Amino acid sequence: MSRFHFPVKEQPQHVLDLNLPPNMSCTLLRKRNIAIKEMPLPILQPDGVLVKVIATGICGSDMHNFLAGGVGGRPPAKNLVMGHESSGEVIAIGELVTTHKVGDRVAIEPGLPCRRCVNCKNGRVNICLEMKYCGAPGSVGSLARFHALPADMAPKIPDNVSWEEAGSIQPLAVGVQIGKRADIRPHQTIAIFGCGPIGLITAAVSHAYSASKIIAFDHNPERVAFAKKYISPLTGKPIIDHVFLTEPLPTTPPTGAAQLNGHAHGNGNGHAHANGDADGDGDSLSERIGENGSGAGIGDGEFPPDDDRHIPIGDHKWEWAKLRAGSYLKQAGMSGEDGVDRVIEATGAEDCMMMGIAMAKQGATYLAVGLSHQQSHWFPTLAVTNKEIDVRGITRYTSSCFPSALEMLSRGTVDLKSLITIAFPLSQSQQAFEAVASGKQMKVIIKNQEV
Amino acid sequence: MSRFHFPVKEQPQHVLDLNLPPNMSCTLLRKRNIAIKEMPLPILQPDGVLVKVIATGICGSDMHNFLAGGVGGRPPAKNLVMGHESSGEVIAIGELVTTHKVGDRVAIEPGLPCRRCVNCKNGRVNICLEMKYCGAPGSVGSLARFHALPADMAPKIPDNVSWEEAGSIQPLAVGVQIGKRADIRPHQTIAIFGCGPIGLITAAVSHAYSASKIIAFDHNPERVAFAKKYISPLTGKPIIDHVFLTEPLPTTPPTGAAQLNGHAHGNGNGHAHANGDADGDGDSLSERIGENGSGAGIGDGEFPPDDDRHIPIGDHKWEWAKLRAGSYLKQAGMSGEDGVDRVIEATGAEDCMMMGIAMAKQGATYLAVGLSHQQSHWFPTLAVTNKEIDVRGITRYTSSCFPSALEMLSRGTVDLKSLITIAFPLSQSQQAFEAVASGKQMKVIIKNQEV
Amino acid sequence: MSRFHFPVKEQPQHVLDLNLPPNMSCTLLRKRNIAIKEMPLPILQPDGVLVKVIATGICGSDMHNFLAGGVGGRPPAKNLVMGHESSGEVIAIGELVTTHKVGDRVAIEPGLPCRRCVNCKNGRVNICLEMKYCGAPGSVGSLARFHALPADMAPKIPDNVSWEEAGSIQPLAVGVQIGKRADIRPHQTIAIFGCGPIGLITAAVSHAYSASKIIAFDHNPERVAFAKKYISPLTGKPIIDHVFLTEPLPTTPPTGAAQLNGHAHGNGNGHAHANGDADGDGDSLSERIGENGSGAGIGDGEFPPDDDRHIPIGDHKWEWAKLRAGSYLKQAGMSGEDGVDRVIEATGAEDCMMMGIAMAKQGATYLAVGLSHQQSHWFPTLAVTNKEIDVRGITRYTSSCFPSALEMLSRGTVDLKSLITIAFPLSQSQQAFEAVASGKQMKVIIKNQEV
Amino acid sequence: MSRFHFPVKEQPQHVLDLNLPPNMSCTLLRKRNIAIKEMPLPILQPDGVLVKVIATGICGSDMHNFLAGGVGGRPPAKNLVMGHESSGEVIAIGELVTTHKVGDRVAIEPGLPCRRCVNCKNGRVNICLEMKYCGAPGSVGSLARFHALPADMAPKIPDNVSWEEAGSIQPLAVGVQIGKRADIRPHQTIAIFGCGPIGLITAAVSHAYSASKIIAFDHNPERVAFAKKYISPLTGKPIIDHVFLTEPLPTTPPTGAAQLNGHAHGNGNGHAHANGDADGDGDSLSERIGENGSGAGIGDGEFPPDDDRHIPIGDHKWEWAKLRAGSYLKQAGMSGEDGVDRVIEATGAEDCMMMGIAMAKQGATYLAVGLSHQQSHWFPTLAVTNKEIDVRGITRYTSSCFPSALEMLSRGTVDLKSLITIAFPLSQSQQAFEAVASGKQMKVIIKNQEV
Repeated sequence: MSRFHFPVKEQPQHVLDLNLPPNMSCTLLRKRNIAIKEMPLPILQPDGVLVKVIATGICGSDMHNFLAGGVGGRPPAKNLVMGHESSGEVIAIGELVTTHKVGDRVAIEPGLPCRRCVNCKNGRVNICLEMKYCGAPGSVGSLARFHALPADMAPKIPDNVSWEEAGSIQPLAVGVQIGKRADIRPHQTIAIFGCGPIGLITAAVSHAYSASKIIAFDHNPERVAFAKKYISPLTGKPIIDHVFLTEPLPTTPPTGAAQLNGHAHGNGNGHAHANGDADGDGDSLSERIGENGSGAGIGDGEFPPDDDRHIPIGDHKWEWAKLRAGSYLKQAGMSGEDGVDRVIEATGAEDCMMMGIAMAKQGATYLAVGLSHQQSHWFPTLAVTNKEIDVRGITRYTSSCFPSALEMLSRGTVDLKSLITIAFPLSQSQQAFEAVASGKQMKVIIKNQEV
Repeated sequence: MSRFHFPVKEQPQHVLDLNLPPNMSCTLLRKRNIAIKEMPLPILQPDGVLVKVIATGICGSDMHNFLAGGVGGRPPAKNLVMGHESSGEVIAIGELVTTHKVGDRVAIEPGLPCRRCVNCKNGRVNICLEMKYCGAPGSVGSLARFHALPADMAPKIPDNVSWEEAGSIQPLAVGVQIGKRADIRPHQTIAIFGCGPIGLITAAVSHAYSASKIIAFDHNPERVAFAKKYISPLTGKPIIDHVFLTEPLPTTPPTGAAQLNGHAHGNGNGHAHANGDADGDGDSLSERIGENGSGAGIGDGEFPPDDDRHIPIGDHKWEWAKLRAGSYLKQAGMSGEDGVDRVIEATGAEDCMMMGIAMAKQGATYLAVGLSHQQSHWFPTLAVTNKEIDVRGITRYTSSCFPSALEMLSRGTVDLKSLITIAFPLSQSQQAFEAVASGKQMKVIIKNQEV
Repeated sequence: MSRFHFPVKEQPQHVLDLNLPPNMSCTLLRKRNIAIKEMPLPILQPDGVLVKVIATGICGSDMHNFLAGGVGGRPPAKNLVMGHESSGEVIAIGELVTTHKVGDRVAIEPGLPCRRCVNCKNGRVNICLEMKYCGAPGSVGSLARFHALPADMAPKIPDNVSWEEAGSIQPLAVGVQIGKRADIRPHQTIAIFGCGPIGLITAAVSHAYSASKIIAFDHNPERVAFAKKYISPLTGKPIIDHVFLTEPLPTTPPTGAAQLNGHAHGNGNGHAHANGDADGDGDSLSERIGENGSGAGIGDGEFPPDDDRHIPIGDHKWEWAKLRAGSYLKQAGMSGEDGVDRVIEATGAEDCMMMGIAMAKQGATYLAVGLSHQQSHWFPTLAVTNKEIDVRGITRYTSSCFPSALEMLSRGTVDLKSLITIAFPLSQSQQAFEAVASGKQMKVIIKNQEV
Repeated sequence: MSRFHFPVKEQPQHVLDLNLPPNMSCTLLRKRNIAIKEMPLPILQPDGVLVKVIATGICGSDMHNFLAGGVGGRPPAKNLVMGHESSGEVIAIGELVTTHKVGDRVAIEPGLPCRRCVNCKNGRVNICLEMKYCGAPGSVGSLARFHALPADMAPKIPDNVSWEEAGSIQPLAVGVQIGKRADIRPHQTIAIFGCGPIGLITAAVSHAYSASKIIAFDHNPERVAFAKKYISPLTGKPIIDHVFLTEPLPTTPPTGAAQLNGHAHGNGNGHAHANGDADGDGDSLSERIGENGSGAGIGDGEFPPDDDRHIPIGDHKWEWAKLRAGSYLKQAGMSGEDGVDRVIEATGAEDCMMMGIAMAKQGATYLAVGLSHQQSHWFPTLAVTNKEIDVRGITRYTSSCFPSALEMLSRGTVDLKSLITIAFPLSQSQQAFEAVASGKQMKVIIKNQEV
């Protein structure tokens, strides 16, 4: 049914009359190889707008296409036009459109939901069963001079928001969706894994939403340094209360292994802490991390084996994760807490997953944002059960996210400008993508009309 | 603060006047070794009731203590009184109690929350930070002639509910909590992994709550056979629409491995399905399972490596899980669906976790009920993100679960009786526990007054 | 933008080729005056289906048009085709439709949301800002031989559901939405005001959803008698536990007026009950109804006047409502409760509103379903605040309601058949509407092909 | 059961050893007549703390007692100690307390829930069925030198929060609860009726939570002026975007009455707007306010009468309310909106209720905070149904509100200081209460140790 996005096959006369220049577009030829080619002008639909694109941000998922040269190592769909974070000016409107006029400054929502499937009609357009997504195979991206889309997918940009900010509004919309899916609420404590654009924007959104404390983690010292200097436009102070440089989790038992072995294989039902108390071991923070302290579970699980068994690598990493989590919480001045309210895992790395669950308090929500190149990982499943954690996936953004993101920018509660570290003309798209690949830039912008 | 459950240290005179017989109790001496010993009569508190216990069910978590002989292989706390699913008759009430009277038939809620921590005061008494739990180390179980507890923890048993049913009410209360945590609602499709008491009770609760279709899985043919014959008191037909006997997931690539390899390492961002469409591969069910079909993710994840890499065992199992899930859905007449609305994983087994996530539709909720003896497992984390799944832990039950369970029994919407397969006198507690360990019984009851 | 529902202006050739007979339709000429006229065949859209309509139910809102002869007493829009609860057979599909085929049996969802406004995209299609609704002015109803609509608005009818049941599925879809908006959950107690089709269907839905107790009210003895004999297909017993015949609330103070005067003017902040306690008046049920018993409110409200004031009629009715509510709860065996969990007010009558709030327990939800011909009423606003009640409006149904309603019918958990008390051919539509107006029938069906 | 708050009847020796001075307390003798009297030192409980009270705010509900001289015009309970918003220093702790120590600075939560009723155990402690509330009849207030309470009701005050701020923390806690019950979320538009302390604090909380636009209303010019100058500590600009001075709603039809009469009696089912469209009347804002524009309702309501009827006063006020609401929205630059997302009615006045519902957009939430001295009011019930509004009551605060309020103060996101306009010693309590009664002060503080 999603073909219905383009039911009309002929360009309306009033668009032809515009005598537009060639629609130069950034197309992916093969792995790490881009050409700027002329592509057909997209056909304006009765419910659509035609946009002269001004600025486009490069996103992590663009990079997957760029670096892999398509999906699965095969050549990409012929002439795939890239890009899905853009802003521009309306230059024509469809015959049914009453909400927009020529000259409107708009952002471009890149996902085209079918509007008819069960998920769309329940308000979960982001998991539309027939989604078309700009710049993904089978669709047309916005890294071109011109782009056409339904009018309701082109929210207007407030006057005080620049083209460049609006062009990188999509990750802020994702940040808004992260806020929704993670149910980020005022007064919460937040731990964020990953200090790239998504991580920092999540911090900024959480801060604007009145989080009480934000801590963040990265293994890249430059990103840690950048994150420490990311300043709140509301308070003039750093947004993130504590930024930690992380090291890999070892895959062998922690020292004091005998004791920890005991933990690892005997307490499938979470009795370790209760036992610790009974022994009068005190109540050190690391003991309280990653275990619920009180007893009997509920499942029909297998009974524990009678004798010692092989302990998997994941269980060793988990022991380390609990120790580290305790240490980080202490350094963050949260010794009195059994963890944070919300964990945002934005790296896709196994160690961060481990640490994230270890750092989550009982009843907390952990949001799985980061994409891995593996399908599966060692994951501390028992703690998810025993601590009654919500682990939630997230896909893109929902319909109110773009307007909300624009509203935040307009009110000045979030700073996107300082995340934009460099800009390129469309003609240098190859260089722009390589700049992202270098890992030296935070957010890279392409100017679409600079051909 | 939880010591406050027992602020009064002396037995009230009106209890002493009862001249009760010795409080014979089922105590755990060491692994698989139980003694019936006289224990002190618990002290009735001003807000409490003293109960002559009539019937007690044995639960999976009791078995952890029984089989392990305490926590971590060490001897249990001295004279641990076991048991936490009981019913009985009130024989004395505390001076402040206005809600109960002598002679009331009551169930016993085994968890004693502190009532003062942040979780208790937010209504999440099940993750009380200072929980004391009957029959867990540090507390006193209900497998005894007499038991004392706060009056508000002793909900009254309707007249038409038997002692035995009320004695096994705790797993039904857990089933009610499963319904809450999994947000089981009318018209949903449900997949349940594990056909032990918790699995079957979850099916019964889901059915009473108007689930539209229920399918279930077990690797034990006897449990599969039992599940197929578990009949609805509402419709007179089996509660579970399809019960499947499962086999282990292989740890090597599926045949057609080349293609699946491609899937496994190249589509970290979930492009596989979109690509498949572009190739005109059609739309076979197994392709639609376990992937969201539409494109660009959102995280700051690592970029995919340039060349082939090692594929972990978990990823092979995941490919198999998707194939199997597709096959099961087809057999269940659900080929048109992209999965089920709710998954209840009640085994703690890695293969079931894999299959559960594969079988969940986009936006579904997966409840992690089962307890493993490992802390961690291979878990399909990428699909959790891409399918926007909620994976939720669960701990015991909350305050309305017991009353709701009793209300269901009284209205006759759930059948517990047919799950109770054998009963023993208290004096034969050892045999009762061994009967559970044998795996031949579904639910085992002990008669506390038969000493 | 809603014109977009009909972007194509010409009938496709394959529809013309069907050589269909004239599209005889039930049109409203003026007040209580209907003609069966030939109307143009609606144009099949690319995403639509063309349906030969078989059966249509008459709904209360159709009656508003019929009895008022249009809106505001003026003649109706020219040739308004009536009707919005129908079932039929697909006889042609649009070029983009892959989900349906000719011969499919379908129900007709009468509301056409714009799919583009903020409410639609958030999943609240029922409050679409540009809704077109079958049979309402500006749209085309389904009381005709043929009807065209988008394919996703034509859910398929299971084989075991009859045309007549499917033709009256819309009120059951409304019942499902009532369940959602009132957040009806298992184990709740429900009070329903009004025993017409919506009231009885709400009872049936609540029962299927595992309500613990249902009580209902009507001022019409025939409806009370009908309601008492409405039997559950699950239990074979009456669905409603207690049906009460109501009398109007007096507008003068209850006897014992002096005391009640005191209540009425001195306890703006809800102190009445506390005072009652202090006086040692005991704790009679009627005192506990409609007041929260404990003290200080929170607002910046006006301070109470120094001396006696005029007591409005609404306050007198409220005192009576509390007395009556207490009496009804007692008769229903709920003396121990401070009210019911959910109130469904399906009459629009002021007395029922008063009684509904009086009968709601603290923290309950009250759903305002019934439509009055007044805009405003005396409403017990102070009790809403003090008892922390949720009063919720409701408009039609949302996207999953039709499929859920069909699913219930197919599983046999709800009985619509016994609510259908008479059927007419399309040619006798006038008689059918008069039959509804007589108040003697419960649900009236029209056979669309019997011209 | 609530007597259990004070199970111990004798003062512990370590409190006696403190040799405290007389516990001078502010007691209410009769209407507007206060005496400072020596009252017994409250008994420290095992789970409690004894507090030397430093500062106490006067709240609207204290005023009800003061001005009415007790409940219902009768003399108050003998020696009622007033006050329920206080801060102080811990001078002794109960034997079981591990969370506090002597010298801790704490706030005093005035409500003592029973911790045992169904509402308490579900986390709704504010609607505890056995609540005791400081300063309400039957309890002991905190306007005294010393106060004893459970330790978990005495949250610690951060170092950077003053005694005075902490002493007026209760209304901020109420503001936090308003945020919860009204489900105030980032990006929403908010309308607040009433610019007293609760209204302004609600504005401040909404602003801190990232509301996109806040408008407020009062009939008192001084409060309007004060509200316009209430400055955000985050932006340095006024918190409230537009403050309006209101006038009473007329009780006669608006000019253009004939047309509006038509509205009032013919559109019980909300057809007015649809009809307006059909007439080509355009789409003026006032037409869109307070009606859903699209047709058929769902209830079994009565059918409209055939001829003209009496139009009640409430319906006239409602017509005016819609006109005014449209005008206010236009002045606030919200012409493009069909209303605001959230309405906070904090006055208890009928006109504000009318205007609040008129100003709420479809699907909005309206919170009924204000207390009236009437039980009932003319309320626009039909619009609640047709616009699918949530009208919610609210009672006090829940358990996380005090900690959240203290956290906000400590982070500096809310300014309480500028709301405190005057302070009095305890010995001048009478003057302090009269100062509040004068209406000239915003927030009045009493210094408890200044006897």
